[in-house]
Amino acid sequence: MTYCVGILVEDGLVMIADTRTNAGLDDISTFRKLHLFEVPGERVLALASAGNLSVTQSVVALLNEGVANPETGAVETILEAPTMFQAAQLIGRAIRRVRAIEREGFEAAQLRFEVTFLFGGQIADGPMRLYMIYSAGNFMACSQDAPFLQIGEHKYGKPILDRAVTFKTDIYDALKVGLISMDSTMRSNLGVGLPIDLAVIRRNSCRTEVVHRIEAGEPYFHDLRERWSAALRAAHRAIPRPPYGPSAGV
Amino acid sequence: MTYCVGILVEDGLVMIADTRTNAGLDDISTFRKLHLFEVPGERVLALASAGNLSVTQSVVALLNEGVANPETGAVETILEAPTMFQAAQLIGRAIRRVRAIEREGFEAAQLRFEVTFLFGGQIADGPMRLYMIYSAGNFMACSQDAPFLQIGEHKYGKPILDRAVTFKTDIYDALKVGLISMDSTMRSNLGVGLPIDLAVIRRNSCRTEVVHRIEAGEPYFHDLRERWSAALRAAHRAIPRPPYGPSAGV
Repeated sequence: MTYCVGILVEDGLVMIADTRTNAGLDDISTFRKLHLFEVPGERVLALASAGNLSVTQSVVALLNEGVANPETGAVETILEAPTMFQAAQLIGRAIRRVRAIEREGFEAAQLRFEVTFLFGGQIADGPMRLYMIYSAGNFMACSQDAPFLQIGEHKYGKPILDRAVTFKTDIYDALKVGLISMDSTMRSNLGVGLPIDLAVIRRNSCRTEVVHRIEAGEPYFHDLRERWSAALRAAHRAIPRPPYGPSAGV
Repeated sequence: MTYCVGILVEDGLVMIADTRTNAGLDDISTFRKLHLFEVPGERVLALASAGNLSVTQSVVALLNEGVANPETGAVETILEAPTMFQAAQLIGRAIRRVRAIEREGFEAAQLRFEVTFLFGGQIADGPMRLYMIYSAGNFMACSQDAPFLQIGEHKYGKPILDRAVTFKTDIYDALKVGLISMDSTMRSNLGVGLPIDLAVIRRNSCRTEVVHRIEAGEPYFHDLRERWSAALRAAHRAIPRPPYGPSAGV
């Protein structure tokens, strides 16, 4: 399982991804799912992946090695894409290329070709974008009205994002809420686990401001988890009991 | 969609169910999903349902009209089952009976036979129980270690239950946390909606202590939602910002 969240606020972009992969509960490993492509000052791109690891790794490899553009015939890498939109299109082509290569083998093994990506960043003076890219290679961009996207095990961590994140949220508050969202997911699904990779990219900087891996036992994240648990307990205790029974309002 | 939660604490049982049904987003209705069978002082049984409404309604009708016991040949209703275990078995038989009747038509229409039930209560001086009953008619009981069960759209509302409910939780606190869990679910999935039906059954009373329907606009539930939102905002604001960036600790 996997949980990745991208948050695009006025200040910039936050990307967070767990690293747990599993082929059954008895086969659990750690793999990086957050990939960064950076030419400081020129472009900064973050790609988070969910789904079949052989596919997502092949897509990332193709983005580095280059994918043929069917219209021009030229082989293009993600570092050459002139806009975020064309970079997202390139990722879509890479997904379809991997699907074409793997289709016969996947069908023979009755494997489902299921991957999703979050792709965010900025190229030169173009707009900062955050896209969700699907197995078919199509994609959609998040909006100011709903300034976050999630892939993988997304439901446990969605309520706090729904309540706490707006386009005007400070970028480090967005990071904090994203980590709370990750904590809620890790608590309910063992298939999502530490370490956690994260990146913070400020708008119009075209460079990563923070690239960090949270390992087990890191004091800040441990403290965040403890504080959040304590705050939730306090929060529900502070709400009056329902007025429906004999102990109404006690 | 549906969300139902049952919580079995030391004091007794809480059952909560929404009432929204939909056959597509353009066909939304209100149906009772929480059914009570009560002979005060002798037995009190609560059954919450998720899945195909034609199936769950047929199961409830069979429980009232009676299902043949394959070993004895006798037709038994849920008001005659001598123990909670045998009542759960009876529900399983009713599900299998409906499946046998509907199988051909469902297959022809390519419909999936998917239902789940939460079944809780107490009969005479037997133990209070809370079961999850599956489409196949098999079932499992919840334990003191994990004193709640959910059916339907369960993920959004699980984090607060995981954190806030133990076997020792007061029964009206359990009701309150269940309503917070319902609120989180309603906020993230439009397929789950008001009114909400709830029942509170105190252990060893063999009668309902509270049976209530929360309609839209009810002051307590409105206040709970507002307080919970405000408390979550305060909770994440009180956590320090991550120490990873230039605005560390601000």
